[in-house]
Amino acid sequence: MNDKDYMTLAIDLARRGGGYVNPNPQVGAVIVRDGVIIGQGYHEKCGELHAERNALASCTTDPRGATMYVTLEPCCHYGKTPPCTAAIIEKGIARVVIGSRDPNPKVSGKGAEQLRAAGIEVVRDFMQGECDELNAIFFHYITKGRPLVTMKYAMTMDGKIATHTGASKWISCEASRIHTHEARARNMAIMVGLGTVVNDDPSLTARAGIGPDPLRIVCDSNLYTPLSAKIVGPGTIIATCESDVDKCRKFTEKGAEVLTLGRNKNGQVDLCELIAALGERKIDSLIIEGGSTLNWSALEAGIVDKLQVYVATKVFGGAEAKSPVGGPGVELPDYAFKLQNTRITNIESDILIESQVIPCSQG
Amino acid sequence: MNDKDYMTLAIDLARRGGGYVNPNPQVGAVIVRDGVIIGQGYHEKCGELHAERNALASCTTDPRGATMYVTLEPCCHYGKTPPCTAAIIEKGIARVVIGSRDPNPKVSGKGAEQLRAAGIEVVRDFMQGECDELNAIFFHYITKGRPLVTMKYAMTMDGKIATHTGASKWISCEASRIHTHEARARNMAIMVGLGTVVNDDPSLTARAGIGPDPLRIVCDSNLYTPLSAKIVGPGTIIATCESDVDKCRKFTEKGAEVLTLGRNKNGQVDLCELIAALGERKIDSLIIEGGSTLNWSALEAGIVDKLQVYVATKVFGGAEAKSPVGGPGVELPDYAFKLQNTRITNIESDILIESQVIPCSQG
Repeated sequence: MNDKDYMTLAIDLARRGGGYVNPNPQVGAVIVRDGVIIGQGYHEKCGELHAERNALASCTTDPRGATMYVTLEPCCHYGKTPPCTAAIIEKGIARVVIGSRDPNPKVSGKGAEQLRAAGIEVVRDFMQGECDELNAIFFHYITKGRPLVTMKYAMTMDGKIATHTGASKWISCEASRIHTHEARARNMAIMVGLGTVVNDDPSLTARAGIGPDPLRIVCDSNLYTPLSAKIVGPGTIIATCESDVDKCRKFTEKGAEVLTLGRNKNGQVDLCELIAALGERKIDSLIIEGGSTLNWSALEAGIVDKLQVYVATKVFGGAEAKSPVGGPGVELPDYAFKLQNTRITNIESDILIESQVIPCSQG
Repeated sequence: MNDKDYMTLAIDLARRGGGYVNPNPQVGAVIVRDGVIIGQGYHEKCGELHAERNALASCTTDPRGATMYVTLEPCCHYGKTPPCTAAIIEKGIARVVIGSRDPNPKVSGKGAEQLRAAGIEVVRDFMQGECDELNAIFFHYITKGRPLVTMKYAMTMDGKIATHTGASKWISCEASRIHTHEARARNMAIMVGLGTVVNDDPSLTARAGIGPDPLRIVCDSNLYTPLSAKIVGPGTIIATCESDVDKCRKFTEKGAEVLTLGRNKNGQVDLCELIAALGERKIDSLIIEGGSTLNWSALEAGIVDKLQVYVATKVFGGAEAKSPVGGPGVELPDYAFKLQNTRITNIESDILIESQVIPCSQG
């Protein structure tokens, strides 16, 4: 095994924290001496020990003189836990190989500097691309203060999200649906529109065993959500423009939260305001599993960072069958929302296309 | 270089015949003696010499004792040209490495047998998958007697083939549009619907230099094609249910052919009848570049063998924007047209998805 193998292991460890550490980063660490892995650990849950300390605590022999592989630059400040650099120095680690830099440019490099000042050999930016990818959500949130917003939908090869009768179970294959649940669990919040609540009455939990249930958000400008909907209960925010206390109380009595926001120019919930409010609540990630109306509103509001599209290798046809993004739409091809950094993954018979939305100012 | 390298060269040579040899197969041949390529050739044009004879004729030294690599089993019967096996035996070739089998099961193996009987060492099924792929069109046509039908469209990531205003120039990137022209040139015929003729007035030629112009077909049940349309002229068939001699004569006077066919249960051109008629005319391949109405009709008629979908990494939105397959569409997800053997290719910013339609009896 070489440096790359050890860092790959550290990345695999980091992933185990997925969904549990938000809004902290996923971090993994591996400690190696004389070609033997003597310790490993990862950041398991927000508020608990960092990966470096978990790895040090797990060492089967004295780590003095060993190399530590860590996916993110060790912290050098007091947060919920004391700085990791202190522990690394104290334990006599001789060499530290670091993947990602601290995303805060004001802090970035300080952790590495402290280690170097203590006589430790430091390698930075090692497999940085892979390590950065682990924490796309964290990096986004920590630099922008608002959640990374992913729009997710499943469509047929002819761009339908339902047949003309409205039937949509199922478009994607079983493996894609499991994949969706995993993606849900990596996001702190999930949002649907009123239409989805009325038509599908979803519970929107992550499948058991994959991760914690996400915060559920219903975008419902006029507070038309049926009180009997499964989603109305604890762990749900209803984002609305309605401020009538009596109307709202019916939902809060059932344990849901009603968040009253301003209207945008179309008279709907101002999604930018919603996103800012979620950022303030330390929600680092939101997945939109809306219908075509909410999808368009979200794109139009400019809040969507990423598309996650499952394309099923089947064709529904139907001039009246719904497609994933509705609303009025753009006038001309040149005004399209443009995407970049597209990644394609085969999921059994489906094709997963992940792409980043190019912000309009750049588009 | 080894057997694989030589066969790969033969495959590359075979491709040069693409679009010119139909309804014959694309075939390439390479002759090697003592590790030196002494001859190479390919089937250049329907009716002209086969690859084996071209390769033999090109030899820079006596091919006696040499190995021939040929992508398709040499013919052993008199067709437009004398059998290739005779020439191979006569020239003293010592070893023949064959890719694809003769697709006619009654003939398959006979060519190889003749060579073996003459004391030649024969290797069959070498890189058969790659060689078979060269001639998907030929194999389809020769076994089924009707053209291989490809449905081609370009759509956005949200399944739109135009904005809500009907604007569609351009959805796909320049590289995809060149790719489309190449695909057109590999097909003997191209079909559009009346809507495309009226809206886009296309000329539907292959781009100069890529291959011969395909036969152009307009599917126009009621013969509403404007006489002034660019497509009305020599090299165009108008497939219609209209049989009025005077109406038809206006088109034939301009050099187009009017093919009167029966109506299907929806009162439109019976596409199965059209496909059979094209097969009889030795048209081995047809690409449908229709709008959503023709695309649905073709799928419903069961004539589509393959989908060729360019997905542009952009989003139009628009509840009223057209999607690639219209018509009534299927009622329920279970009734979807299903696809298999999907292949994905990145074409600059676009994604090309190619998939085979599973015939309904299997679906």
